[in-house]
Amino acid sequence: MAMTTGDKYLKRIAQLQSEVWLEGECIRGGLTKHAAFRSVLQAKAKLYDMVQEPSHQSLLQSSDHTSNFTFEMPRTKEDLVKRGKATRLWANEAAGVLGRSPDYVNTIVTVLAASKAYFSQAGVEYGENIQGIYERAVKHDYTFTHTFVNPPISRKPYYPDGENQEVPIAAKIIDETEEGLVIDGARLLATQGGMTDEILVLPSTAFVDSDYLYGFAIPSDTKGLRFLCRPSVCKTSVFDYPLSSQFEEGDAIVVFDHVLVPWSRVFLYRNELLTSDLFSKTGAEAYMLYQAANRQVVKTEWLLGLAQALVDVMGIEQHQHVQGKIAEMIIALEAMRGFVCSAESQAQVNEFELMVPKIEPLRAAVSYYQATYPRLVEMLQLLGASHFIAAPNEQDFASPIASQLERFVRGESTTAKEKTQLIRCIRDMTMTEFGIRQTLYERYFFGDPIRVLSSLYHLYEPEKAAYRERVERFLKQLPHEKIQMDESFRS
Amino acid sequence: MAMTTGDKYLKRIAQLQSEVWLEGECIRGGLTKHAAFRSVLQAKAKLYDMVQEPSHQSLLQSSDHTSNFTFEMPRTKEDLVKRGKATRLWANEAAGVLGRSPDYVNTIVTVLAASKAYFSQAGVEYGENIQGIYERAVKHDYTFTHTFVNPPISRKPYYPDGENQEVPIAAKIIDETEEGLVIDGARLLATQGGMTDEILVLPSTAFVDSDYLYGFAIPSDTKGLRFLCRPSVCKTSVFDYPLSSQFEEGDAIVVFDHVLVPWSRVFLYRNELLTSDLFSKTGAEAYMLYQAANRQVVKTEWLLGLAQALVDVMGIEQHQHVQGKIAEMIIALEAMRGFVCSAESQAQVNEFELMVPKIEPLRAAVSYYQATYPRLVEMLQLLGASHFIAAPNEQDFASPIASQLERFVRGESTTAKEKTQLIRCIRDMTMTEFGIRQTLYERYFFGDPIRVLSSLYHLYEPEKAAYRERVERFLKQLPHEKIQMDESFRS
Amino acid sequence: MAMTTGDKYLKRIAQLQSEVWLEGECIRGGLTKHAAFRSVLQAKAKLYDMVQEPSHQSLLQSSDHTSNFTFEMPRTKEDLVKRGKATRLWANEAAGVLGRSPDYVNTIVTVLAASKAYFSQAGVEYGENIQGIYERAVKHDYTFTHTFVNPPISRKPYYPDGENQEVPIAAKIIDETEEGLVIDGARLLATQGGMTDEILVLPSTAFVDSDYLYGFAIPSDTKGLRFLCRPSVCKTSVFDYPLSSQFEEGDAIVVFDHVLVPWSRVFLYRNELLTSDLFSKTGAEAYMLYQAANRQVVKTEWLLGLAQALVDVMGIEQHQHVQGKIAEMIIALEAMRGFVCSAESQAQVNEFELMVPKIEPLRAAVSYYQATYPRLVEMLQLLGASHFIAAPNEQDFASPIASQLERFVRGESTTAKEKTQLIRCIRDMTMTEFGIRQTLYERYFFGDPIRVLSSLYHLYEPEKAAYRERVERFLKQLPHEKIQMDESFRS
Amino acid sequence: MAMTTGDKYLKRIAQLQSEVWLEGECIRGGLTKHAAFRSVLQAKAKLYDMVQEPSHQSLLQSSDHTSNFTFEMPRTKEDLVKRGKATRLWANEAAGVLGRSPDYVNTIVTVLAASKAYFSQAGVEYGENIQGIYERAVKHDYTFTHTFVNPPISRKPYYPDGENQEVPIAAKIIDETEEGLVIDGARLLATQGGMTDEILVLPSTAFVDSDYLYGFAIPSDTKGLRFLCRPSVCKTSVFDYPLSSQFEEGDAIVVFDHVLVPWSRVFLYRNELLTSDLFSKTGAEAYMLYQAANRQVVKTEWLLGLAQALVDVMGIEQHQHVQGKIAEMIIALEAMRGFVCSAESQAQVNEFELMVPKIEPLRAAVSYYQATYPRLVEMLQLLGASHFIAAPNEQDFASPIASQLERFVRGESTTAKEKTQLIRCIRDMTMTEFGIRQTLYERYFFGDPIRVLSSLYHLYEPEKAAYRERVERFLKQLPHEKIQMDESFRS
Repeated sequence: MAMTTGDKYLKRIAQLQSEVWLEGECIRGGLTKHAAFRSVLQAKAKLYDMVQEPSHQSLLQSSDHTSNFTFEMPRTKEDLVKRGKATRLWANEAAGVLGRSPDYVNTIVTVLAASKAYFSQAGVEYGENIQGIYERAVKHDYTFTHTFVNPPISRKPYYPDGENQEVPIAAKIIDETEEGLVIDGARLLATQGGMTDEILVLPSTAFVDSDYLYGFAIPSDTKGLRFLCRPSVCKTSVFDYPLSSQFEEGDAIVVFDHVLVPWSRVFLYRNELLTSDLFSKTGAEAYMLYQAANRQVVKTEWLLGLAQALVDVMGIEQHQHVQGKIAEMIIALEAMRGFVCSAESQAQVNEFELMVPKIEPLRAAVSYYQATYPRLVEMLQLLGASHFIAAPNEQDFASPIASQLERFVRGESTTAKEKTQLIRCIRDMTMTEFGIRQTLYERYFFGDPIRVLSSLYHLYEPEKAAYRERVERFLKQLPHEKIQMDESFRS
Repeated sequence: MAMTTGDKYLKRIAQLQSEVWLEGECIRGGLTKHAAFRSVLQAKAKLYDMVQEPSHQSLLQSSDHTSNFTFEMPRTKEDLVKRGKATRLWANEAAGVLGRSPDYVNTIVTVLAASKAYFSQAGVEYGENIQGIYERAVKHDYTFTHTFVNPPISRKPYYPDGENQEVPIAAKIIDETEEGLVIDGARLLATQGGMTDEILVLPSTAFVDSDYLYGFAIPSDTKGLRFLCRPSVCKTSVFDYPLSSQFEEGDAIVVFDHVLVPWSRVFLYRNELLTSDLFSKTGAEAYMLYQAANRQVVKTEWLLGLAQALVDVMGIEQHQHVQGKIAEMIIALEAMRGFVCSAESQAQVNEFELMVPKIEPLRAAVSYYQATYPRLVEMLQLLGASHFIAAPNEQDFASPIASQLERFVRGESTTAKEKTQLIRCIRDMTMTEFGIRQTLYERYFFGDPIRVLSSLYHLYEPEKAAYRERVERFLKQLPHEKIQMDESFRS
Repeated sequence: MAMTTGDKYLKRIAQLQSEVWLEGECIRGGLTKHAAFRSVLQAKAKLYDMVQEPSHQSLLQSSDHTSNFTFEMPRTKEDLVKRGKATRLWANEAAGVLGRSPDYVNTIVTVLAASKAYFSQAGVEYGENIQGIYERAVKHDYTFTHTFVNPPISRKPYYPDGENQEVPIAAKIIDETEEGLVIDGARLLATQGGMTDEILVLPSTAFVDSDYLYGFAIPSDTKGLRFLCRPSVCKTSVFDYPLSSQFEEGDAIVVFDHVLVPWSRVFLYRNELLTSDLFSKTGAEAYMLYQAANRQVVKTEWLLGLAQALVDVMGIEQHQHVQGKIAEMIIALEAMRGFVCSAESQAQVNEFELMVPKIEPLRAAVSYYQATYPRLVEMLQLLGASHFIAAPNEQDFASPIASQLERFVRGESTTAKEKTQLIRCIRDMTMTEFGIRQTLYERYFFGDPIRVLSSLYHLYEPEKAAYRERVERFLKQLPHEKIQMDESFRS
Repeated sequence: MAMTTGDKYLKRIAQLQSEVWLEGECIRGGLTKHAAFRSVLQAKAKLYDMVQEPSHQSLLQSSDHTSNFTFEMPRTKEDLVKRGKATRLWANEAAGVLGRSPDYVNTIVTVLAASKAYFSQAGVEYGENIQGIYERAVKHDYTFTHTFVNPPISRKPYYPDGENQEVPIAAKIIDETEEGLVIDGARLLATQGGMTDEILVLPSTAFVDSDYLYGFAIPSDTKGLRFLCRPSVCKTSVFDYPLSSQFEEGDAIVVFDHVLVPWSRVFLYRNELLTSDLFSKTGAEAYMLYQAANRQVVKTEWLLGLAQALVDVMGIEQHQHVQGKIAEMIIALEAMRGFVCSAESQAQVNEFELMVPKIEPLRAAVSYYQATYPRLVEMLQLLGASHFIAAPNEQDFASPIASQLERFVRGESTTAKEKTQLIRCIRDMTMTEFGIRQTLYERYFFGDPIRVLSSLYHLYEPEKAAYRERVERFLKQLPHEKIQMDESFRS
């Protein structure tokens, strides 16, 4: 069995020597002891421990119990549905706020490996390479971050030293040697960047220039690879910030400073056609969306649970508008579940014998959630009103004024501290810097909402045509005579 | 085989002697020749003809081919899913705008008959009576209208002749004889009232007074039964009003003028408990919602088809905001499908051995659609702009100015008449009096949106409790110590 | 005194020989007797009678009592505010639903004449011509329709007889003679087209080709001028359709069939610069928007009055959500009033000595109303619920079932007929074909909402720049040192 | 001259000995040196310095130059408009984010003093007391916090020590002595609580019990008075948090621990009638709203400026949807200005000879802004997309990776640091804990949005009645005959 445990996972990551920059400081190794990384790594370790728990093994391990579920290639609808359940179980463990539990990118690696033949079209070695990346990952139970976006591009080329030497912005192939590709430039925005065993680099479809067309996976501590993390929103008080303190994943600009990517790690190379069809033909996009939609279902359950707890603590259930707000959250939850159900029930086996969920409902799901998640947050704000402004903190409750808080802040049948803990949890979910990053994450994780809508429009081409033709048939067959009146009607 | 055909159906309805009042005129018999009723009856006749078509028999007939699908009691998920498909097939035949194809109320009759034991709790005769109503309906392939709403009640009693004699407003039992109950007063708002073989009268839960607690079905031409129809929106020009001219169903206040209801037709009688649990315990509500949600899926497909046809005729596909509007319609369609899928996949057999779709997603569906349908209409208005103001009519195209219309009104690659036909169809779907009634129908057919949200809130009690408890467990198990910083972090 | 009276106005229009096509029929003369035109002409006649009423003379007549207010050129803020009040008084007389009371286009004629010097830049005769048009209009107290939109243009030229002869679609200059311009083609969409003394033809800015650049006014019965009216939504029953029956204005495609426009009527001729600055430099746009915004204020008052009457008849005032809906309407009303107030208080004299209202708030107003008007309609629908479906009509109340309607349909303290009259008025305002045209009119009367937003964006250039610079100054002057902590804070 | 300067103000506040609790720590004195209070006090000091600047004296000082504008009683429209401008000037200095510049509560004190006769109705001493409070405030140029909300009340009384002794929650009169009232309990939620010279305590209208009906003002360091501050969101890095670091005002629960309020400070005492009419009769509410609406105008200008700067830095101006988003912000700004303009132009002198702005547009304004402010924030989020996630911080730019940020993060024509500074400013305005508190502040500062709507509904009673009657008159005068058709029309 290649499955890791929480402990083994933490030990492995502790030894990772990736070059991580955070708030002006360079960190190399020891992430598991660093305040900004420790908690989320422990949260992930818990997920690995769950895999070993007898009660979860049937769901969280592959059918043959040789790996965790993330590396299993679904061949039947049952496989698919099981995977969805496993994703939801993990997501629930993290209150729905961990965007990148290991299943997210592992799913991509697994789906790409299942589509080995796809990459072999350009040369048998590319198929073998993705297969090798997958097998190594299974063997060690690896985690990955990934990136497939280029920095917003300046139309002017970049000459840092005046007009002499142009340097790349978006990461590109600047050289090729016997050992492999040499990559220079940057990629956006790797969640958990620097904290995972490897990084999966997928081609961006924004450029046609073949210098930008490549796919590979390399260890996070490869020479020249650098992770520029955004400032951490991790907090130390669990009472004040129950989620920030546990689940801050970070996001990083990935810099390739003349990184040498061995040929054996390259599965896609200067191939425009294979790049443009990559996500649709392999089923990778459908699987990424399927993971995301399942996580969002769980997140919505959490928001609903928080909202109902708040309503009960505040004693405002009897108000029609309160019920209406909760009901809107219920509708959102049922809608998300429906999209997932629809994708599962229409799943089909693709040419690589993967059972791929139907993509249309999943695209609709992600687009729906981009617009709906902020409304769910708004519901919480509208329910809790000024409670979110006034919430005391851990230090207040540890001070001489604790008894006064108990007198003036308590709920109908909860202590002030319990009530405050709930309110601070909701704040942290939606109104701290961690919470706001959650909102931005849901708004943008699959791209600009306007472009997501446009791509849904195009994806839906066959259905739209069918419905349009149905309308045209109806109009063509309309009878042309007037309907006969009888005499008494509207004389 | 008891299945009717379009022709037989029309002949039977032609002989119906129900007392129908329309726009000040009393009509008795001959509805199939009356301009206000003829078209919709023919539209329904087509549905019956479809049942006989070889290509549709497997879907539109019961498994044993003894009745059409509407009278089949679903025992398995396959039965349920088949019924959903059949509903969508019929709905599609009517462009999604026929609120009451025969399956709607037939479903209720069938579900109630399947729950015969429910009614027998109050006396074995009540179970037998609903069984009898059902069997007779199957035998003759009957259609029904139904009513379960009381008129909005005046707090003051009603004394039409001064202060002496109070008369009932909401229909109530005013007498009981050996023959049966005597009912006096009115009920709201029977769609197709007066045009169907029988009327199914369900108890309203608004009153506790047992005079108002009854359930029965009687022929539409029962003595004293009177249908006060709202003014018809039926139109004579199919070109100008392609939907109003074919699918105007009407709605009627049902007046019971001392109507004698034979005991053999009564299946619920002054029983408060059986009344309050009626819709939930028998699965009737779940089935009504299931029919409605399936119809709404089809209606949304039609709106989407019309929108896309419009976009193509106008040549505006390239605009991002146009794509965004269509994409919003796609999301609505996928959401509705998802709700249906969810209800099917979580369906369970109830105590009367009916396979009942899960009600929560269906309640969410109807509530979602109450809010979303007007947005779909808005999308069409925003796409078509002033085209909807300026559309010429049939007479214009039959006049000397036809050639000028061709010159000034034609589309890029459609004739002016074809383009106008499409625009008039969209107008009729959403902007004529017929179209507006469609909007009102979707906004209100399952009740006031605010109350529907409240009832969804209450229905969701177990789930909300589970999610709230999950939150509470999470908060309780939070570690109480602060997270240790390493020295370098935020010194 | 040149001011007309209702009677004189009707007599003059009765003699108008414009070529009007309606529903396939050609009408020449006698509009005042034709059912489709009679009512709205009488409604306008009432406006003229109001001008003569002693109580209204100070508001509805010019200061020197030589014309009605529509022809007065405002020179001071007081003049402007008076004009706004006069517009609201007339609008109120027509329940806010008459889009084109005579002040709308008369205002444009007046403002253009005040800007005589603007047109004279291209030749002194053009200034004199607009002056002449104005003086004649004042002398006879004329009414106008106007047009400034081209038909949506086919990219392919139009060859009705195969490939030989291309004919114009948008109206253009096809010849010039000593007598004047010869115009051929069509223009969209003249409200009240054919019913007014003259038509004002303004240049469209859509084309650069000078064949399309012209401005003139000619009598509606000029030879070759043809009005293709959309089907009428006028109704005969005032009870059933209190607004459709009185205020249906019609909209018409204007066809110029080789129309000769005398040189003396041309005030703008093949001049691109004068065309592109026309609406901004003369203040015409500001004045059109000012008239519209004032009318919309009144319309909103009517919608609010209808809503409150409905709430009272239904006895639902106590519900918080009902109050909330009315309050939203109040906010809309106050917002519209605020925009007008803002435009007035920032009005400035332009180079032609006109006191021109500030355009920015008025553009904001029209854009706000495009989005808000449909919400106001929605509020009415949500308040009235199924009452709008079930409303009986005039014939019902004149029939034997009237007493039953009284019993079952009456309100708490209103008769069924009174209640129904109110409900039908709301239906007609918002849910009949007349009502829907009102919605479309408000959504589109100043252009596609998306483009109106874009133009507001550009119009606001100076303000945006000022606010952006303020931000930049703020960011530049930020202190660069960290704020010093005292020891005790967050140790 | 009684006007203070920034320096004098800071010295005075430095000596204030109010009992302030913050994050578990008790602070007494030295607020001007404490990191959590220092910055906002300096920001306020700048406002006082502005009053002395020659260029601002005409606006920021009273007409007779004896006090700053906050203490001037407006008697004319010019006075009122000047006050609005002064408020906007101060608000602008604080980027619109300082909710409580001194004018907010000073305005209330001033208006109440102007209404001296109102309080004298219950006894001449009450009038004199408010006059005394005002005069002392003017003399020393005092600042105030205020409170008029009770803690959400438990229906069960509070017995902290079991069942023996009930203690008050909401602050109430528990004793009266010769010296004055003794108050015990708490009040919510004093912004800047503890940092101002005095606290103004206004009666809450939530209780009828006269123990809760009182109005007074006392020094912040009165014995027994205690301010329980919510945790501070003040930050030390100006670069990272340009607003949090300067304008964090704090909010505090105010605890009255057996506080003795001298009779000379009491202006309202157990008087139900004077309590319930207080805010309307004196004009205090209108003035509070007027200050708030003017501040919100400025805040909206800032949001618009930030949005436009962002659009320019990102180079996305050409997109229609970007223009549309900015245009929505423009509409909001013009709407807010319109409300203010409307309130000014309809202002009237009240019985105490104050020129009081019209309250209806101001209530509409605050209600509009409660709903609109979150949309403005949303626009910023939608425009900036993932830029808000990835923004580096001050330490990053001071570290070795600065050059890499310059390479990968810079804008089209701005340096990475400038671009980041802008993005961090927008984050701080809307997405940090400071920013979120701004959102909550605007959502709630005048009360629960649902209740604000209800109160607007009731306030509008006379107007609604007038519009309803107009509708009724219209319906009553409708002609009863049908409109005559001519033969050719719709034959």
